[in-house]
Amino acid sequence: MRSIRGRGFRELTLLGEALELLERNVKRLPPQEVHLSQAGGRVLAEDVRAERDSPPFSRAAMDGFAVRASSTFGASQSSPRYLRLREGEARAGSGWQGVLGEGEAVRVSTGAPLPEGADAVVMLEHVNVLGGEIEVLRAVPPGKNVALQGEDYRKGEVLLSAGRLLEARELAVLASLGRARVRVSTRPGVKVIATGDELAEPGEELGEGMVYEATGHALVHLCRSAGAEAERVGIVEDSREALEEALRAAAAQADVVLVTGASSVGEHDLVPEVFAELGRVLVHGIAMRPGEPTGFGRAGRALVFMLPGYPVATLFGFEALVRPTLQLMQGTPVNCPYPAVKAVLRRKIASELGRRDFVRVRVSVGEGGFEAEPVRVSGSGVLSSMLRADGFVVVPENTEGVEKGECVEVRLFAPLSGSCSGIKVKYAPADNVG
Amino acid sequence: MRSIRGRGFRELTLLGEALELLERNVKRLPPQEVHLSQAGGRVLAEDVRAERDSPPFSRAAMDGFAVRASSTFGASQSSPRYLRLREGEARAGSGWQGVLGEGEAVRVSTGAPLPEGADAVVMLEHVNVLGGEIEVLRAVPPGKNVALQGEDYRKGEVLLSAGRLLEARELAVLASLGRARVRVSTRPGVKVIATGDELAEPGEELGEGMVYEATGHALVHLCRSAGAEAERVGIVEDSREALEEALRAAAAQADVVLVTGASSVGEHDLVPEVFAELGRVLVHGIAMRPGEPTGFGRAGRALVFMLPGYPVATLFGFEALVRPTLQLMQGTPVNCPYPAVKAVLRRKIASELGRRDFVRVRVSVGEGGFEAEPVRVSGSGVLSSMLRADGFVVVPENTEGVEKGECVEVRLFAPLSGSCSGIKVKYAPADNVG
Repeated sequence: MRSIRGRGFRELTLLGEALELLERNVKRLPPQEVHLSQAGGRVLAEDVRAERDSPPFSRAAMDGFAVRASSTFGASQSSPRYLRLREGEARAGSGWQGVLGEGEAVRVSTGAPLPEGADAVVMLEHVNVLGGEIEVLRAVPPGKNVALQGEDYRKGEVLLSAGRLLEARELAVLASLGRARVRVSTRPGVKVIATGDELAEPGEELGEGMVYEATGHALVHLCRSAGAEAERVGIVEDSREALEEALRAAAAQADVVLVTGASSVGEHDLVPEVFAELGRVLVHGIAMRPGEPTGFGRAGRALVFMLPGYPVATLFGFEALVRPTLQLMQGTPVNCPYPAVKAVLRRKIASELGRRDFVRVRVSVGEGGFEAEPVRVSGSGVLSSMLRADGFVVVPENTEGVEKGECVEVRLFAPLSGSCSGIKVKYAPADNVG
Repeated sequence: MRSIRGRGFRELTLLGEALELLERNVKRLPPQEVHLSQAGGRVLAEDVRAERDSPPFSRAAMDGFAVRASSTFGASQSSPRYLRLREGEARAGSGWQGVLGEGEAVRVSTGAPLPEGADAVVMLEHVNVLGGEIEVLRAVPPGKNVALQGEDYRKGEVLLSAGRLLEARELAVLASLGRARVRVSTRPGVKVIATGDELAEPGEELGEGMVYEATGHALVHLCRSAGAEAERVGIVEDSREALEEALRAAAAQADVVLVTGASSVGEHDLVPEVFAELGRVLVHGIAMRPGEPTGFGRAGRALVFMLPGYPVATLFGFEALVRPTLQLMQGTPVNCPYPAVKAVLRRKIASELGRRDFVRVRVSVGEGGFEAEPVRVSGSGVLSSMLRADGFVVVPENTEGVEKGECVEVRLFAPLSGSCSGIKVKYAPADNVG
């Protein structure tokens, strides 16, 4: 395995290699069946095929008169065509019995089965009814104002493929197919453990030298956003016994365990040691910044991630490693939920060869489009820099940095402002970008 | 009110005007307090200020020796500076008692309060300890290797403003401030009613002329994605009495009621009529496509939206009107969750002056970047076209369409593929774009 030296680590694994190793160790969870009302946000675990053509028969898409298109050819306001009006009417639910011939027409309403022999509909507005015949003022081509059988989809066609995230459009399709139950990927179960004697729960009194546990709730939220069922175990004290017990219990119940803090190589960093007792560390120390002390391995059937205690490093560690894992477990494509925009870099980013950097940036609108400016940070513990950032830039291993003026891809934490209708609604107190 | 003629409607309201009217009728819901564990995905309803400086005192960011930077000026490998080593050490939790003078140094470990008199830290690696003095091999500027008091944020500074969506970063900040409880906007309550005698529930036998109710589950999912608590009432029969009862009950319990189907102007379209009994229709018929028969009004304290029965039209009606409403009720900026990309149009889009069109497009990667091609549709009931589309283009009122080759903004239904780490994970069976 290629590696570079890291502070405290004998060697660091390249992020890409860590991900490959992770992929080989991730198993897709066996799927389950849920009711349509529970299917939103889940990942489809079957190919959903059409059981019939849609529309099931060719039907009128307008109120008017069914005709053979050829009977109308040449018709115009100044030179109408005259067609014999057949008795009766084709309505939705009850068609018209008979076969329409050349030079004939029959009344149809929207949604009615197209009468046999007809291949188009002339709209009401382009016809004058004159007793037993109609005057057609406009020619129609075959198929005009008709929804043809199977034009939406054909019987047997795969409409939704396994792996597809079920959102509004997919739910509408499943419902329209009459599917009350559907096979979906099981949500990975995640337990989140925080370690460190210096940690206090928010709301508690903060003793001398203590800090609040800041990553647990955030990680639970991120896991849920990636489709998992996540739960915070809470703070576990920095002892071998307590850690081993907590890790063993979590690994027995969950598919994924996230352990924050105490994963570096200092004297009090017990996690790697305890971990080695329960399972196997696959990677510890990754060539990324922030997030170098990140690692993962197996304990029983669970995948366990060691994440740094610093919130910023933890969040990037989640995005780099844990989100892909949760997506792979659900059999959905690995996707970054943060929208990408191109921006011109306003200040140089320095990096190191062989390391992947996640650089927080502010985004503004300049003359030529978006501009990105790295946020000044003094360390990965500095949270306010995270709030001031609009997104992040990934600097790959094969470069020592990005020069001012170069174009970079920024992943935005929040979507670009603006309503979906393209109309600016006045109430917009905190546009994230622009 | 300006208007254009619409099929069946005497006049249509411009979408922008409908939104203005809506804004004047939307009240922000009174906020509530929740525990941090429940705060993810909620909208902050207070300004969260820092209660102290962060860091609360200047501290060492590295293991090394605290110094006055000026004592090191000129130091180099070939010309070291020699400083008197004071007794003791500054550690995290227990500082060093004393005042450091010019030409002096004292041992510090990471996180320790910076001793009085010192303004920088020389890293361990750049020092040789020689009994009672140290040899400094590199000069440091003031502030080097020090996290200065208040450099992250100052006491009283607003860290999170009201209206901000609470996601991972925000939860981490709240936790690190020790906030166990936080004021958030109340989730709007939404009831979803489907009307139509031709509707059957998915899973039921489909009688002659019946279709499955396809929009309810999708709307519930969309409402939840916009922060609301949504529930499907189910299918209500097409009678004045049944509709009135359902609407009255829903309006008494919910902040927003969505009624799909039966909102056009045909003879069986009772909703507008029933509505007028219970409250006031503010807009009915909007110059947009799809979604023309959309409308809204008040019934008691609830806002009621009439949405078309066709799934595609309903979904765009939701995005254009309902999502902004739910966002305004929560006091969050009106934002479209679908990421925007620029694309070159591969086929002309025809539109109509005075109407806003939502055009489904496929996106592919061409030579010069993204390309967008309108999806062929025969009507707004055609669901498969929605599945084949990668996103949509909004064509504003002041144009008759967009020419082939022009650049358009596409809103993507799914995020661009690719992991957040910038590294492609091999498992990606259904990249949405590219």
